[in-house]
Amino acid sequence: MKWRVTVTVRLKEGLNDPEGRVIGKALRNLGYAVDGLRVPKCFEFELESERPEEEVEEMCRKLLANPLIHSWEYRIEPVS
Amino acid sequence: MKWRVTVTVRLKEGLNDPEGRVIGKALRNLGYAVDGLRVPKCFEFELESERPEEEVEEMCRKLLANPLIHSWEYRIEPVS
Repeated sequence: MKWRVTVTVRLKEGLNDPEGRVIGKALRNLGYAVDGLRVPKCFEFELESERPEEEVEEMCRKLLANPLIHSWEYRIEPVS
Repeated sequence: MKWRVTVTVRLKEGLNDPEGRVIGKALRNLGYAVDGLRVPKCFEFELESERPEEEVEEMCRKLLANPLIHSWEYRIEPVS
C-alpha cells in the first residue's frame, strides 16, 4: 500500500538553533514581532509499505535524524 | 494578539531538489520503497500581530522564500 509521509525533525528543547536565531533577528529588523523562531528539518515523500509507521520510525533513527540531538514527528496518510 | 505560525516553503513543481534526491536514494539503498522525496524549508515561530495573515505573507515574500522559485503555505493558530 502507498502512503504520503511528512516527517518533521526538530532540535531538542534547549539546543542552540543558530539559523533560526539569525532569521528571527532579520524578521524583527524588518519590524515583525517574531519570537522563538526555529528551523526544523522537513521531509515529504511517498512510501510503498505494509508497515509504514515502523519503517518511518526506522528511517528517522537511521538517517533522517540524530537521536542524540533531535526529536521527530511524522504524519502518514494513505495515497488514494 | 499572539499567534503560533508554521511556514512551509517548497521549491516549485518541476524544479530540481538535489538534497531531496540524495536523501531519497540513501533511503532506497537502505531498502525502503521511497519515492519523490522533497526537502521543504520549514519555519516555526510566535508572532505578536493584529493582522497575522498579511504579515506572514509579507515575510514569505520579503525574506523566507524566493517567489521566483518557491511556493509556500502557512498555518496560523492563536496562542492560548
